[in-house]
Parts: sequence; structure tokens; C-alpha cells
Amino acid sequence: MKRFVLFVPLVAGLALAYAPALAHTSTIAPVVASSAIYAPITVAEVEAAQKAWGEALVAISTEYDTKGHAAAKRLAEQVLDTAYGYTMGPVLFKPTLTMAPQTFRTTRDGALAYFVGGDKAYPNDGGFALKHWRKFQLENAGIVIAGNTAISMGNLMLWDDKNNMTKVDKTWGYVRGGDGKLRIVLHHSSLPYTPK
Amino acid sequence: MKRFVLFVPLVAGLALAYAPALAHTSTIAPVVASSAIYAPITVAEVEAAQKAWGEALVAISTEYDTKGHAAAKRLAEQVLDTAYGYTMGPVLFKPTLTMAPQTFRTTRDGALAYFVGGDKAYPNDGGFALKHWRKFQLENAGIVIAGNTAISMGNLMLWDDKNNMTKVDKTWGYVRGGDGKLRIVLHHSSLPYTPK
Amino acid sequence: MKRFVLFVPLVAGLALAYAPALAHTSTIAPVVASSAIYAPITVAEVEAAQKAWGEALVAISTEYDTKGHAAAKRLAEQVLDTAYGYTMGPVLFKPTLTMAPQTFRTTRDGALAYFVGGDKAYPNDGGFALKHWRKFQLENAGIVIAGNTAISMGNLMLWDDKNNMTKVDKTWGYVRGGDGKLRIVLHHSSLPYTPK
Amino acid sequence: MKRFVLFVPLVAGLALAYAPALAHTSTIAPVVASSAIYAPITVAEVEAAQKAWGEALVAISTEYDTKGHAAAKRLAEQVLDTAYGYTMGPVLFKPTLTMAPQTFRTTRDGALAYFVGGDKAYPNDGGFALKHWRKFQLENAGIVIAGNTAISMGNLMLWDDKNNMTKVDKTWGYVRGGDGKLRIVLHHSSLPYTPK
Repeated sequence: MKRFVLFVPLVAGLALAYAPALAHTSTIAPVVASSAIYAPITVAEVEAAQKAWGEALVAISTEYDTKGHAAAKRLAEQVLDTAYGYTMGPVLFKPTLTMAPQTFRTTRDGALAYFVGGDKAYPNDGGFALKHWRKFQLENAGIVIAGNTAISMGNLMLWDDKNNMTKVDKTWGYVRGGDGKLRIVLHHSSLPYTPK
Repeated sequence: MKRFVLFVPLVAGLALAYAPALAHTSTIAPVVASSAIYAPITVAEVEAAQKAWGEALVAISTEYDTKGHAAAKRLAEQVLDTAYGYTMGPVLFKPTLTMAPQTFRTTRDGALAYFVGGDKAYPNDGGFALKHWRKFQLENAGIVIAGNTAISMGNLMLWDDKNNMTKVDKTWGYVRGGDGKLRIVLHHSSLPYTPK
Repeated sequence: MKRFVLFVPLVAGLALAYAPALAHTSTIAPVVASSAIYAPITVAEVEAAQKAWGEALVAISTEYDTKGHAAAKRLAEQVLDTAYGYTMGPVLFKPTLTMAPQTFRTTRDGALAYFVGGDKAYPNDGGFALKHWRKFQLENAGIVIAGNTAISMGNLMLWDDKNNMTKVDKTWGYVRGGDGKLRIVLHHSSLPYTPK
Repeated sequence: MKRFVLFVPLVAGLALAYAPALAHTSTIAPVVASSAIYAPITVAEVEAAQKAWGEALVAISTEYDTKGHAAAKRLAEQVLDTAYGYTMGPVLFKPTLTMAPQTFRTTRDGALAYFVGGDKAYPNDGGFALKHWRKFQLENAGIVIAGNTAISMGNLMLWDDKNNMTKVDKTWGYVRGGDGKLRIVLHHSSLPYTPK
């Protein structure tokens, strides 16, 4: 458990007039809380959260196709509560297919409407997660870890049940929730730019 | 300088059988480094950085219109080095008008090409900052401060010299640089979604 | 709710050859989560946590003097679980009166033994919180806020029921717990140095 | 460089009525700035900073014994500027052998006086670094990494040129400086408690 390290002092430009006892050792026995709420987020955690997000989207689509809207909505609510940080404060969420004046969805209701539709307060929302998604692929352009936050940017490719592909530019920002698990507090998604 | 506070202990459910000397005072003389590299980012700092970004874009456009491309490029380089974190590591930058395979600009060269064009390595870049911008307006949907990082999301409206308006959905992520000033390490910009 | 700010661009050394529409406004409507787990710790929160610590120590002493050891121990456990971060990982705790090989109390058991004694595994612990404390005074030399952590250093003066005063040099380090409230993850306390 | 991962979706309790194309892959090519100012501090960095501190103390002592006070003071100033965060704000520093009213040394002058003495403003400072230290040993009780800060607690053993040993209880708190290297912003050192 304990690691003993022998330090040989290397002090540049230091003339030692005599030779004292020089050996000095260092005993290091760190006790580190690596999974605590305050622990830095790791790249592996970000990748796992991204994978979980894609799997959840496919799961909601499949739930909808096999069990109907009510079941899909229930699953979407579970996903929102475990993957996003709406219980901790506003989430900066700009979904792919939203328009003014409802472009940004800082509340859980707005996010739920976007994913499964059926909310009169969001009449343009058809339910993005109901589009029969069956597989996904992520390609990160970069991940930045800053203290105990993390942001990722890259492409998400989604295929529906007819194997049609949709590609989006995707940014996610993560913090830790009260249980130490990652929560999305930033989500900016947009269709690739195409010149007119 | 010193603040004296008289504390009256209120311990719920505590029966005091006798009356000891109860007055206990607290002297607090905090010495706090509020502008240090490690200090939390404030909303005011985020708003100031946003304002500076808009002003810099207008300035580059005006420099281009009045002094030409070389001057505009010099100014753009200054802006990149003071506003973005490219000297600290990769920046997650998805500009408004970029396409695959050059959608993401994690390097300073890629960002400079986007703003002022003229780089053979980025043949599709016409120079976004050269579009004769004259004024801007920002409308934040939200700002999240997480430790000593910050993210903002909202709309940016830009007007050119003919008063044509361009509106984009804009996300910025900030950290502190070595001088304690904010640097952009995340920038996701996209045109509003329009149904076909 | 919305704040409109008129920005007058001041670009040093910029010659404007003509006069375009210059007024550009900025609309800022921040939605900020100031009490979230990821929110920076404030000086006011640190001062409140320090005050709560002192009050809790007096409360445990008073509980002991009025209701006995079992009641004091129950209260000490509550205090440990709400004021310290032992449920999140090891706590770096060097109490005032501990000696090798039990100087450091990184576990909850070690901290409880220190405060209320009566644990055979810690035979030298008489119970620091049982020393009939009646009032306290804090004098901070400084508080440093770093991201969503905070550290404070200063003097704590404690008076017992006979008005005898004990003074210690005290350092506390704080993070946020899962409920967003401060938890001590560092506590170094020592008697003032006195030359022999 | 790119890592391809095949994801097999495992959605508990999900009945798949039909069999869509299930293979979904994820391509992850993270670009991470691990040495940036905003990067989390690692245990290895803390251990290296501790080792550097011990080596620096021995170096100042040796410089004093071989070259005299002026040389030792110059070296101490270099050490302070590279190891401590005085240029970033106040440092919470409670050295081993200081007394009221000069117990806490939140300024660089106070720290320098403690290490090499000779400052009339600190008449009790004999110069801790001049005590002919020749070797050191560190034994950490724990290290806590919180975002991009770190704290360590443990014992430091120091031997002088006559092989007399001094043992202290030592806490250090670290942040990153503008150059990305660790700086001490908290230092609480105390002699072990001995019952009278």
C-alpha cells in the first residue's frame, strides 16, 4: 500500500562544501477519493455518458415502436432525470430541430416535449426520439476536461429503421450530479451547414 | 475591516439545564483573492466577454472595409489570442458556416481561416469577419457557472452595412487564462433550424 | 427580467471612413443556477459553515452536560454527517489533540472517537467535544475560493463553562456535498507554537 | 488514433418485436488538453510538488551553510515565487514556529522572513530554512483532488547536519499557476501535540 521513493536531490549549481547524510526518502501513501462528487471528470466517463445517451435514444425509439407512446414517454422521463441536470438548475439545451420562440429548452418540460412530443405548450414538437432510431455512431472532434466539468464536441450519426442516416454537429457539457454521476448541463445540436 | 458578529446559538431540541455564558462572537476578516486564476467566473465577466467578442467582430469588419485584408487579419490574430484559449490547448470550435471535413476548428489556424479567409488549407472559408458587420445584439437564454468555468447559450444577431440581419444560435464555454482573463474553449454556432 | 444594455463600440485606433448604423444593443437574460452542486462556493457560505461548526461543538458539549454521553454521541454523529464529507471519501483531519500513530483521522470512526471518546480503538481520545464548551469566537486570517472549493485559515477561541479559554490555529477546506451544502474535507487544527 | 467501439445495446426490460439493424458503432478521437491551466491536478503532480518543496528546503539550508545568508535568501525568493502562489493573491500560510500576532503569513514578505529571517518587521523569525537541513521524508495520510485544486496532509520528517530529526504535521493546498504548474495557496504546519 505504501510507496517508498528514494529522492536523490539534484540542486543545480549547488556546491556542497562537505558531505552530509544525503539520502532522504519519501513515503507516499495517498488516500484519494476518485469517484467523489468533487473528483475531476475523466475522458472515460465522458465517453461512457455519450454511449449511454445514444443507447437511450435508440431505446426510447424502440420502446415507442414496440409498446407505444406512453411507454416511450415514461422511458424518456427516466432518461432525462438520469442523463440531464434539470433537477440541479437550468440546462442550456438547443436541440437540433427547434425554432424561435422555443429554440432553447432550459426546463425539463421543454426537453421532454422535444424528445417525445405530445405537449400542447410545444406545438411544433413531433418527438425527436420517436423517429425509429436503431443505431448511432459518435465521432468526437475533442473533449476538454476543466476541473470537475467536461465538454465534448463532434458528430453524431443516427440511423432509423429504414437505414436512413441523419448527421448532426453535437456539443455536450457535463458536471457531476449529487450521486457523483455525470449530468448534461449543456447540449447544443445542429444540422450541418449547407450553402444555398 | 474586521466584522464582528454576535452568534446566538439556536440548537433545536436542546434543553439547557443551567445558564452558561452564552455570548460567543465571531470575528471574520476574510482576505479573498477574487481575481485570481483560480477564482470562480462571474456572470458579469461572461457578459463582458460576450460584449468584447461582438465588438471585436465589428472591429475586424470595419478594419477590413477601411484598411484592407492585411490589417483585418492582424486584428483577427490579436482577437484570437486574447479571446480564445488556443495557446492553452485545443479549442472546441464549430463555426456557423463550416462543412465536413473541416467543420470543427480545434486549432488557431483553422479559426483564423474561418474569420478572415485567405488560407489555401481551408478553401471554403470566405472570411466570416469580413462580411461588413456593423452592429450586434446578444440575447442569452442562460448562463451556467460551474467552478471556475462558465457556459452561455443564446442568440446573436448581427447586422451588416446594408442593415441585413443574420441570427445564429450561439454557445460559448469559458475558462480563465494564465492572466486571469476569460478565454473561449468552446464555441458552437449554428443557423436556426428551418423546416424544409 | 431582461436587461438591455446599449453598447457603444470603442475600438482603439480604428479609423471609420464612413458612418454605418453603429448602435448595437445587447439583451442579457441570464438563467443562473447559483445554488447548484457545481456552483462556486461563496465567502458567505464559508462563514456560515464556520459558525455552524462552532455552534455544533457548543451544542454537543451542552448535550453532554445536560443529557449525558449517549445523547452527545448521537448529536456528534449528526454533526459529522452534515458538516464533514466522510460519506464522499476520506477526510483530511488532523485534530488538535491527537498523537502518532493516530494523528490523522481520515475515517468517520476516527473523527467520532476524537469528538466524544469512548472508542477502544482510539484509547487516547477523551472526547474533545465533551470539554464543557460554552462559547466560541472565530478570526479568519484568510479565505480562498478556488472554483467550487474553499479553504479558510485563522484562529478559533473556545471558552468552557469556567470561562477558561483555549485558542487554536485552524484550517478548514470545503467542497459541496450531493445536497449542494458545504462539507469539510480538510481540517487541520493545532495549538499555537510556544518556544521552550 | 481513432478508437472504434462496437456498442451492443442492452436495454433492460425491452421487448424487441422485430429485428432492426442493431450494430451501432462509436468513433472516439478525443483531443484533450491534459496540461492546461484548467486541467485537473493529478496525484503525481502533488507528489512531485511535495518532493520539490523538500529538496528546495535542503537546498536553501545547504546554500546558507556553504555560501552564506545573501545567497540563501536569493534562493529562498526563487523558491517562494515558483512554489507558492503569492503573486496570485494571499496565501494561507501557518508555519511551524510562528506566534501571535504574526502566526499567519498571507504575504510573500512574511513567508520570506519565516524561511530566512533577517527582517526587522518579523523580529521572532530566526530563519527556518537556515537550520542546516540535510534530508527529508514525507508520509502522506491522504491526498484529495477536487476539480483543479488539490490538498495533501501527512507528516514531514526533517534531519539536520547532526542527524537530529524534526517531525511536523503538514497540510498543503495547491492550485495551478498561470504557467500550469502547481502553486501552494495553503500551508498549515504544526509540531505534533504532546500532552503536558
